[in-house]
Amino acid sequence: MDLYRERGFDQTTAADIAQRAGVNTRTFFRHFPDKREVLFDGEADLSAALAQYVGEARDGLTPAEVLLHAFGKAAHILEGNRSFAEPRLALIAATPTLRERDLAKGAAMALSVAEALRRRGVDDRLADLAAHIAWAAFHHAAQNWIDDPTSGLQTYLTRAFENVNALFGSVRPAN
Amino acid sequence: MDLYRERGFDQTTAADIAQRAGVNTRTFFRHFPDKREVLFDGEADLSAALAQYVGEARDGLTPAEVLLHAFGKAAHILEGNRSFAEPRLALIAATPTLRERDLAKGAAMALSVAEALRRRGVDDRLADLAAHIAWAAFHHAAQNWIDDPTSGLQTYLTRAFENVNALFGSVRPAN
Repeated sequence: MDLYRERGFDQTTAADIAQRAGVNTRTFFRHFPDKREVLFDGEADLSAALAQYVGEARDGLTPAEVLLHAFGKAAHILEGNRSFAEPRLALIAATPTLRERDLAKGAAMALSVAEALRRRGVDDRLADLAAHIAWAAFHHAAQNWIDDPTSGLQTYLTRAFENVNALFGSVRPAN
Repeated sequence: MDLYRERGFDQTTAADIAQRAGVNTRTFFRHFPDKREVLFDGEADLSAALAQYVGEARDGLTPAEVLLHAFGKAAHILEGNRSFAEPRLALIAATPTLRERDLAKGAAMALSVAEALRRRGVDDRLADLAAHIAWAAFHHAAQNWIDDPTSGLQTYLTRAFENVNALFGSVRPAN
């Protein structure tokens, strides 16, 4: 992350990262297929954690409440790791090739969350839709947090869910 | 599209496509940077059309109603072009490298739609959130349409908006 901030993503090579970390390039590539993946090392953990939080949410919550609970816990983790999470998100937002990878990771994560909702008995299609909407809300909240860190990620997340409610809560088909 | 269906995406080269189209490979690459882009040729048009529909929606609609109107018109176009749209979406869903490109195009389209909402006077952040949520709903509806074409895309789209309402319409922060 230091290197990416000092030189920019495009000007940093895998060899540079390996050198800074005190390992050789072969060792780098044993751990990461490319220099993008360094920034997504925690995604599998986050995906598993989200699925677990969905499973652990108490009975009686609506799917959206389960998702707010799960993404809220994920937000809490990111906030606790802010010194890494914040520059990471800013770097992704500023780098098209990283945004593309981030979108793919996000889509995979939404599928994992949808699967966890299904295991709670949520209808197949509703689970897919709810997971993708919640993911979009989380992504939006994370962007807000990067733009203005004076509020916490959890605050932005709750506000995003409230705004989805306000925006889509009374939609009437217009024909 | 015929070639991709006959041989699969990975087994089809740009040279194959050029040959089938009766042009040489250089001509192909004058029109498309790679073989993925052939499938996204209409995205710029769709993005411009969506922004236009958002701008043209009548006054007095909520942002979500504007979006349902705009994406509904886009759905209508896709339905009218079903013989291409349906295998295209199925191919994208089945091919990871195309899904990644599709996600990037979708994100760009959501930004364009958000900008069109802002021009209607919708608050900056609400516009961004609403556009991404609507895009996720549209994407979900398109997937449903591919999975089960016995209903139309517009029907699935309206249902997706209704389900966002049902799912997120009464969320209470759970702490």
